[in-house]
Amino acid sequence: MAITNPFIESKLKSPEEVALALPRHVTLGCSGFTPAGYPKIIPPAFAKRIESEKKEGKDFSINLYSGASTGEELDGALARSGALKLRIPYQSNSYLRNLINEGSVDFIDMHLSHVVKYIEHGILPSIDVAIVEAVDVTADGKIYLTTSSGMSATYLLNAKEIYIELTDIHPAELKGYHDIYLLPHHSRTLPINIVSPEDRIGTDYIQVNPDKIKGIVRSSVPDSASEFKAPDSDCIAIANHVLSFIQDEISKGRIPKDYLPFQNGVGNIANAVLASMAKNDDFHEIQMYTEVVQDSVFDLIDAGKLKFASTSALTFSKLGLKRFHQNISQWKSKFIIRPQEISNHPEVIRRMGLIAMNTALEADIYGNVNSTHVMGSSMMNGIGGSGDFTRNSHLSIFMTPSLAKNGDISAIVPFVSHTDHNEHSTMVIVTEQGLADLRGCPPKKRAELIISKCAHPMYRSKLLEYFEKAKELSKGKHTPHYLEDSLSWHIRFLKTGSMK
Amino acid sequence: MAITNPFIESKLKSPEEVALALPRHVTLGCSGFTPAGYPKIIPPAFAKRIESEKKEGKDFSINLYSGASTGEELDGALARSGALKLRIPYQSNSYLRNLINEGSVDFIDMHLSHVVKYIEHGILPSIDVAIVEAVDVTADGKIYLTTSSGMSATYLLNAKEIYIELTDIHPAELKGYHDIYLLPHHSRTLPINIVSPEDRIGTDYIQVNPDKIKGIVRSSVPDSASEFKAPDSDCIAIANHVLSFIQDEISKGRIPKDYLPFQNGVGNIANAVLASMAKNDDFHEIQMYTEVVQDSVFDLIDAGKLKFASTSALTFSKLGLKRFHQNISQWKSKFIIRPQEISNHPEVIRRMGLIAMNTALEADIYGNVNSTHVMGSSMMNGIGGSGDFTRNSHLSIFMTPSLAKNGDISAIVPFVSHTDHNEHSTMVIVTEQGLADLRGCPPKKRAELIISKCAHPMYRSKLLEYFEKAKELSKGKHTPHYLEDSLSWHIRFLKTGSMK
Repeated sequence: MAITNPFIESKLKSPEEVALALPRHVTLGCSGFTPAGYPKIIPPAFAKRIESEKKEGKDFSINLYSGASTGEELDGALARSGALKLRIPYQSNSYLRNLINEGSVDFIDMHLSHVVKYIEHGILPSIDVAIVEAVDVTADGKIYLTTSSGMSATYLLNAKEIYIELTDIHPAELKGYHDIYLLPHHSRTLPINIVSPEDRIGTDYIQVNPDKIKGIVRSSVPDSASEFKAPDSDCIAIANHVLSFIQDEISKGRIPKDYLPFQNGVGNIANAVLASMAKNDDFHEIQMYTEVVQDSVFDLIDAGKLKFASTSALTFSKLGLKRFHQNISQWKSKFIIRPQEISNHPEVIRRMGLIAMNTALEADIYGNVNSTHVMGSSMMNGIGGSGDFTRNSHLSIFMTPSLAKNGDISAIVPFVSHTDHNEHSTMVIVTEQGLADLRGCPPKKRAELIISKCAHPMYRSKLLEYFEKAKELSKGKHTPHYLEDSLSWHIRFLKTGSMK
Repeated sequence: MAITNPFIESKLKSPEEVALALPRHVTLGCSGFTPAGYPKIIPPAFAKRIESEKKEGKDFSINLYSGASTGEELDGALARSGALKLRIPYQSNSYLRNLINEGSVDFIDMHLSHVVKYIEHGILPSIDVAIVEAVDVTADGKIYLTTSSGMSATYLLNAKEIYIELTDIHPAELKGYHDIYLLPHHSRTLPINIVSPEDRIGTDYIQVNPDKIKGIVRSSVPDSASEFKAPDSDCIAIANHVLSFIQDEISKGRIPKDYLPFQNGVGNIANAVLASMAKNDDFHEIQMYTEVVQDSVFDLIDAGKLKFASTSALTFSKLGLKRFHQNISQWKSKFIIRPQEISNHPEVIRRMGLIAMNTALEADIYGNVNSTHVMGSSMMNGIGGSGDFTRNSHLSIFMTPSLAKNGDISAIVPFVSHTDHNEHSTMVIVTEQGLADLRGCPPKKRAELIISKCAHPMYRSKLLEYFEKAKELSKGKHTPHYLEDSLSWHIRFLKTGSMK
């Protein structure tokens, strides 16, 4: 059902009209977080205009800012236009990723909790135009977002001009899911009054000056989250190791019986953990304080176990979205969507004592974790919120299958080729092989645990060989390394296609 | 003037009596933070007992926990006894450092804000005996600490037995400087009500069960902080770069005119920054929310510029201590001493928007910083609070002279041999050569800035050579590396004694 009012009617434009009105050299601040709630109509129209005007010799340059990753209609379309110059703060589009790794698009890989300040303080090029997906807009400038909050509020408030994609894909009852709260960034702040995931401290809309709204485009395109895949045996094995560990922590009194809230990253492993919790009789009344909720949350709901989930995005598959729409009124008591500065805020994360579960690309024998750079140089997606959560959570768990590329890559290496989370902050590493609890262990003990519990048997003796050589030849015996060989696994992979 | 009361009199023991009462296999939780307020009488007596009983074939093992570094009478004496097995969470004693790097003492290098939880949750071996320096003890078990807070409250509350070194080195007016506040660690917490460095939320004493106090030893030994050295030209150059940068940030509206509070690390560079602020007419009403205050604070006081300093330790030289004693009543309005969990708490650090200034051992061309591991393997002191502050501050600045070992080491390298603070969290790098503001820069831009602004001219062309080679040969061009050469500078140093 298309929402309307005289203000909306007065602002309606075609996507082509908006595309034509956009500056050729522009910094765009777009809605969207892990492809939820991003604009899907204006960017492809803009890309089309660029394509045609480039033939006439006109040049374009776009800086694209979002909350986190978006979909093909935004990241893909603008990347393919050839006009994209700078992208922040996270992406996961394969075409764009290739441009970044060829060196033709600049990418700034940021802690998601830092982005608001960098915008407010003018550290990054300032926002010319905000394009956000909304479910409603009022004549006095109240904008109601769709399935993500991300950076939208900040981009709307800082943009010179605003364009809205007014979608009819969601029922009007989506209004009320958001809790928009912005921190002052030019003065001291007071405590953020969130002590539990369900606490509301803001408004369910963003108030802008309505004069800045230069056009509204109607949209019926859904978010493009990928279909939910059943977890494979590695993911299930990892999930089981994690759950046993958490049960053990509860029995030791380190996690209260009513649980600390969970943060879990995106992807199959994170989904498997929630699916396993849903099936496990020892888990109940689950709370989440996280940045993305995916279809796996339905397992918890079906099992009657979801107490509450605070997130910055509801990233559902087509089937998941249908289910969400069917229950949209009732589930307002189950979900809050927050700006990423609040979902990822160190203050709230430390206070709530989150259990943070994120995916590693690789980890080394001492517990340093690489989440971003393949072979030290090629960007995968970005650090996203993993640094915000890892550094300040009660428990920081990193999960990865022990092998990648059919066994040609070991996720456990002598020395990570890039460090996103270091030995001081990584508390637990889990692969399908097992779990290494690194807390309270000096470096050499950590190496023994990681090699014996987490490494794949195919690489275990090779890792032990490195560790023994390092202990023998390293000048310093605190964290022994034999630097000649430290990066040799990565070098071998780059040369031969295998770490073997 | 020796404080006394009937309870104290009833508990008085000689250091030798206490030493004899200590278990042979013991976990000690001691007061002390950056050598301030640590026990100085009992540990040497214990070391003497160990020495003599070892000759009789008896074996000893000690786990030593403190707030941060301590003095020779504690770290040195116990390390020399040969009985030290485990040390947490920070140290700076040269004899102990050697044992750690030989591999004969285990050291767990921890974020200082994590230590309380690791103790409360029994992740580390539990505390048998607490030994703390105090200025007063009451019959009902109120303990008044001396010049540091650190971990003392947690160790006192968790120890089975308590010994006190009651010092007469400080006037009784030291009572009132502390603000002891402990967070619950087995349940949810509420906001910490500190919004400004001077906010008091706790008590000025630690309440223990007086039955646990097994002995009190009188002491007249002062803290052993080293004498204050006048900053050299490199330190002054670094300080001037930092101040110009901060002035520029103020003019851009990124730092409020009444300033955000400063955190500054230990050492000559940090001292030079404060000394330069004292002399610079643009700086006034300085606030600090930090973990250590050193003699350099007197420069601010003399210039009438110190508004307030919150710290976990007052680490003064002999002359500095004399001055502190002369003004001890009056300066209660200038200083608070807090437990390290609060001085280093992410919630308070992010809320106040600290300007964090810490020392790097080395930084690489992309902005990753090594604070702890010489050539990747040998422990210097530890990460201390640098991770707590860097990750959550408003501005994270790393400072280092561009050269070490008479030019044989370049502090700017192609690839750090250990990462304590990564490219996502390091905002500014400064050497005597200049300052690189890395915020909002993609990786290759960061490399250009760091090489041109921070590297010593002696190494600049070599770094550029690496960077050019990496850009040419790296498969991924986002963060180009040529892994064959990445650690070659460190390997060369280990083989030849020089990176040249």
